[in-house]
Amino acid sequence: MQLSSDFTPTPRIAILGTGAWGTAFAQVLADAGHPSVMWGRSEATVADINTNHHNSSRLPGFPLSESISATTDITEAVSGADVVVVAVPAQSARSVLEQIESWPKEVTLVSLMKGVELSSDLRMSEVLVDATGVDSSQIVVVSGPNLAKEIAAKQPTATVMACEDAERAKRVAALTITDYFRPYLNTDVIGVELAGAVKNVIAIAVGMAVGAGFGDNTKATLITRGLAEITRLALKLGADPKTMAGLAGMGDLVATCASPLSRNHTFGAHLARGMSLEEAITAAGGTVEGVKTSRSVQHLARSVGVEMPLTDAVVDACFDGVDLQAMMKSLLSRPHKDERR
Amino acid sequence: MQLSSDFTPTPRIAILGTGAWGTAFAQVLADAGHPSVMWGRSEATVADINTNHHNSSRLPGFPLSESISATTDITEAVSGADVVVVAVPAQSARSVLEQIESWPKEVTLVSLMKGVELSSDLRMSEVLVDATGVDSSQIVVVSGPNLAKEIAAKQPTATVMACEDAERAKRVAALTITDYFRPYLNTDVIGVELAGAVKNVIAIAVGMAVGAGFGDNTKATLITRGLAEITRLALKLGADPKTMAGLAGMGDLVATCASPLSRNHTFGAHLARGMSLEEAITAAGGTVEGVKTSRSVQHLARSVGVEMPLTDAVVDACFDGVDLQAMMKSLLSRPHKDERR
Repeated sequence: MQLSSDFTPTPRIAILGTGAWGTAFAQVLADAGHPSVMWGRSEATVADINTNHHNSSRLPGFPLSESISATTDITEAVSGADVVVVAVPAQSARSVLEQIESWPKEVTLVSLMKGVELSSDLRMSEVLVDATGVDSSQIVVVSGPNLAKEIAAKQPTATVMACEDAERAKRVAALTITDYFRPYLNTDVIGVELAGAVKNVIAIAVGMAVGAGFGDNTKATLITRGLAEITRLALKLGADPKTMAGLAGMGDLVATCASPLSRNHTFGAHLARGMSLEEAITAAGGTVEGVKTSRSVQHLARSVGVEMPLTDAVVDACFDGVDLQAMMKSLLSRPHKDERR
Repeated sequence: MQLSSDFTPTPRIAILGTGAWGTAFAQVLADAGHPSVMWGRSEATVADINTNHHNSSRLPGFPLSESISATTDITEAVSGADVVVVAVPAQSARSVLEQIESWPKEVTLVSLMKGVELSSDLRMSEVLVDATGVDSSQIVVVSGPNLAKEIAAKQPTATVMACEDAERAKRVAALTITDYFRPYLNTDVIGVELAGAVKNVIAIAVGMAVGAGFGDNTKATLITRGLAEITRLALKLGADPKTMAGLAGMGDLVATCASPLSRNHTFGAHLARGMSLEEAITAAGGTVEGVKTSRSVQHLARSVGVEMPLTDAVVDACFDGVDLQAMMKSLLSRPHKDERR
């Protein structure tokens, strides 16, 4: 794919957040020849990146290019940026973005976030518009079967870049093309974002099944039913069915649910093995997007009259402590004479 | 689900084949209260089932009910049967069925087979019609995320039973309802059979990727693209898109590709690690449905003008020995500006 770019030859790129995915994305940009400045709250992590060219707390074992620098000063990071990649936890996005007083007029915001804001039921691109005042056509959403550690290991990976403005998605894609990272374009921002958010909820359900001792037959059934409920919600909200069957829909769901590397999956397994909500979150590594997103998604689904039984089950298990074995059996025995109806 | 049955209270059930899936299905019937007679060529396996209530060569470790008996006499097994379950390797179906001189007029044939006949490009239900002369409305196809060993372990499992005649599928379903096995009904025989056949080909492609050292991102991308190409072929041949997104389509594909228990997956991994076709087949346990099916599917797809790049890649790798690393890279770098087109 030959992509043109009308960013300046060396666009200024800031990355907000020093998590695994933000860091892996910085390395993709570096491998494609583009330096970036990462912003993070942790002085230790910032120093680690600047001095050791390593993010030992979030992406241990992967050396980072010297073209990646870091700062704890968010205004400095964003100042004059052509592209700002937002890679903070979904529920923190608004408070992080509101620290910035003025945005470069032509800035492109790239969202690596997956979630739905708890207080507002807004998708992440909607939160970005709300918190920054930029136009929605300036926001590019990146999503797909993209486990950060595999990208950091330069495993071949395909992703989807979605933007209302197809030319803008193309320009961002052009900044990331390497021999291992392959962006595809889409204009269905709603579908890409909903799939990315809800898959974390389904991954918790699948993790719960695995933790409760169920095998690959059950797991595949839950993944299939999971995509069906994600798709029902997304279509109701205006998404394209092809997005749901593609890399950002089915692809991301399959990768997240298959991988023991996924924190949502790990969290679900811990919960099923008897940990409390707090214990399971801590054991899974801290931020488990699917937990809070499950409530937002349930709320959003109810507001538009879409049934999401797996999402409901995850909310129950996280917040009401239901009997997991009973829940799994009831999910498999829902009355369906014809599964297509 | 309350299913009525107008089989006699104790229908005579024969099962042709003593492989893992046929044996696990016999145990499901037994657990639902229905005895069966299994037919197999191996005197040792028949004796093992009759004497030890065990199929130690194909389903080791799972005791079988005493209501399951076995014989090497196919005419005896089928004589007077209300239901004949056909669970032999896809390419052997015709020669096995042609041994039977006359079929009970009202017999129901249940196909557990997944494949497309090499000489004719026919689906298994079409081979059954051709070889037995029964009407296509008498054939019920069973398919879904159904790893035999998990069913034998009584893991909760959902499946799809497809028949042109919905009432007949319902009667077969009623024979299998237990607390761990859950049949759903469908009338889209074409979709269910094509999904079941082609998923074995895609599982080889995924096994090849795993064998070549690729991770979950690549695997999920191949599974997603795999379902897309299965769906393109199936829709062209008249299937319902909902079948492809359901348990017999996506569900079976995800279970087969995720599981190291699948012989097609194992075969692909061995091939990628440098074994010859014959060595890899032997190492995977003998019958690898996807190998021969890959050629039939390629032939079928070309005859109706559908592109199936993963299937083509599997045919090349099995029969022409292409460079696997190069093939995986080329699959990820096919030119797609918008993945939905």
